[in-house]
Amino acid sequence: MLIGAIEAGGTKFVCSVLDEFNETKDRCVIRTRGPEETLAEAADFFRKHPIDALGVGAFGPIDLNDRSETYGTIKNTPKTAWKDFPLRDELKRMLGVPVAVDTDVNAACLGEFRFGAGRDVDSAVYITVGTGVGAGFVKEDQVFKGLTHPEMGHIKVSRMVDDSFEGVCLYHGDCLEGLVSGPAIEKRAGISGADISVDDPVWASVAHYIAQALVNYTLVLCPERIIIGGGVMKQSHLYPMIRKEFQRILNDYITIEDLESYITPPKLDDDQGVIGAAGLAKDITGS
Amino acid sequence: MLIGAIEAGGTKFVCSVLDEFNETKDRCVIRTRGPEETLAEAADFFRKHPIDALGVGAFGPIDLNDRSETYGTIKNTPKTAWKDFPLRDELKRMLGVPVAVDTDVNAACLGEFRFGAGRDVDSAVYITVGTGVGAGFVKEDQVFKGLTHPEMGHIKVSRMVDDSFEGVCLYHGDCLEGLVSGPAIEKRAGISGADISVDDPVWASVAHYIAQALVNYTLVLCPERIIIGGGVMKQSHLYPMIRKEFQRILNDYITIEDLESYITPPKLDDDQGVIGAAGLAKDITGS
Repeated sequence: MLIGAIEAGGTKFVCSVLDEFNETKDRCVIRTRGPEETLAEAADFFRKHPIDALGVGAFGPIDLNDRSETYGTIKNTPKTAWKDFPLRDELKRMLGVPVAVDTDVNAACLGEFRFGAGRDVDSAVYITVGTGVGAGFVKEDQVFKGLTHPEMGHIKVSRMVDDSFEGVCLYHGDCLEGLVSGPAIEKRAGISGADISVDDPVWASVAHYIAQALVNYTLVLCPERIIIGGGVMKQSHLYPMIRKEFQRILNDYITIEDLESYITPPKLDDDQGVIGAAGLAKDITGS
Repeated sequence: MLIGAIEAGGTKFVCSVLDEFNETKDRCVIRTRGPEETLAEAADFFRKHPIDALGVGAFGPIDLNDRSETYGTIKNTPKTAWKDFPLRDELKRMLGVPVAVDTDVNAACLGEFRFGAGRDVDSAVYITVGTGVGAGFVKEDQVFKGLTHPEMGHIKVSRMVDDSFEGVCLYHGDCLEGLVSGPAIEKRAGISGADISVDDPVWASVAHYIAQALVNYTLVLCPERIIIGGGVMKQSHLYPMIRKEFQRILNDYITIEDLESYITPPKLDDDQGVIGAAGLAKDITGS
C-alpha cells in the first residue's frame, strides 16, 4: 500500500509518499502560492505514484464537519487566495483517491500520538509554538473535534504583573499566541529569536505563559501527555522552565506522577505532520 | 425498571428513585455527615425500593479510572472524613446493585445534555457557578474524562486592569473559582450575594471572568452549547452580560450562529444532578 501525505503550510507544502510502515518512498517540497498553482504541482508529484489515499494536514480554519456541505473547505483565512477553497474536493477530483483533511496541528498530534512521543499513552495534546501557536488533541486514537476544530493557541492567559507587552495577535492582542509566538518574542526582545541569549528574561515570560496554557489544557482535557514542538521550542532550555512554572501554577491540584514525561518534546523530528497526515489517509482506507 | 440516583454534595445528599421515564417515585434529602452515617441513611432509603442500579454524582476529587484499583474512591478532599473513602464499592456492597459514580458536574452535564438544555445538540459543557465552580463536558452521549476528571473551574484567567482582588481559591488564589464563586463575590462586595444590587460593578467583573472561561472552553472543547447553572446564576441578569463579554473577547474568531442559544441557562431546575446520576445508572444496566 502507498499513501500520500501533505503537510500544507502557509509557506510550503511538504508532499510525501509513504508505505504502510511509514517509510518515505518519495518526497517533494512545494512553495505555497495560490491554490490552483500549488495543487497542480502537488498533483503532478502524486500522479507519479499509485497512492491508495491522501491525507492532508492543512493550515486553517477548515470546515471539518463531515455533515457540512463545505466539508474540507478552507474558511476565513488571511491567505485570501485560499479563502473558501474546497481543498478536499479539489484534491479528490484531481487524484481520484479518497482524501482525508484535518488541521496541521491535529495531524501532527496524530503522528506523535501513534508513532512518536505519545505512543505509550491513551491521550495526548500536541502544541506547536512557532510563527503561530496551535494545539491538537488525540484521545483513544481519534483526533478530537467539535462544533469546529480547537483553536487552543488563542486562549486568554493571566498577565504577569509588570508585563505591559501588548501582544501581537491580530484578533486578541495578548492571547497565548499573541504573547509567545516567534513574532511576539522577536517584537518583545527587539532582535531575532535565535539571537536572544539563553538567560534573557524574555524566556521566563514565554515559559510562564506556555505553562499557564498547559495548566488550562490539563484542567480541561486531562490528557496523559503534552508534547510541545515548533520553532520556538528549538530553544530546549524552555522545557525545564515550563515544567517548573507548570508545577508552581498547578500547585499539586492534580497529581502528575512524572512531569518530565508529561511535558515532553516531540520525537518525530519535523515529520510528525506528514506522518500524521498519512495516518488520516490510512484511517479512510480502512486498512 | 427503577433506578436509584444520588446527588452527593458537601452539605446534603439528594437521594431519588426514578422510573425509566425519569419520573420521581420517591425522594429524600440527607444531611452530609461522615461517610458511614450518611451512607447508612441513604441505604435505608433505597432498600425500600427494588432498584436495578444506582448512579451517583459526587463531590470530588474521585478516581474515575475504571482500570484503577481505587476506582470510585473519593480522593484528596478537604472533607477529611471522606478522604480515600471507597464510595462506589461501599454502596455496591450495601445495596447489592451495580453502582456508577461520576463527579457532580459531570452528572449534571449528562442530565442537561440528555433531557434539558442540551437535548438537541451533540456536545455540551455544563458549568456551575456557586459555592465552587466546576464544569463537565458531554460529547456524543458520553461524559468526557481523561487521566483524571476535568477541573475546569480552576483555570487561570486574565485579570482585568485595576482589579486587585486577590481571589479566594485555597490552591490558586485568583483562578476562575477564586474570582467568581459565591464566596468570592461576597468577599469582593462585602455583603451577601443576594443583597448586591443588579447594577453593582461586581457583576461586570463576574461576567467578564466567566465569559473568558467560556471563550477558553470554546477554543479547546468546541462544544455545541454551554449551559451555565449554579446559585450565582440565579442572578439572571448575568446571562446577557456574559454573552456580550464573550462576543467581545472571542472577537469573531469562531463563528457562533446563535449566541443566545449557545450560552444558556439549564432547563431541569435543580434536578439535573439527580437526573444525570440516574442516566449514569441506566447506562450500566444496558437498557
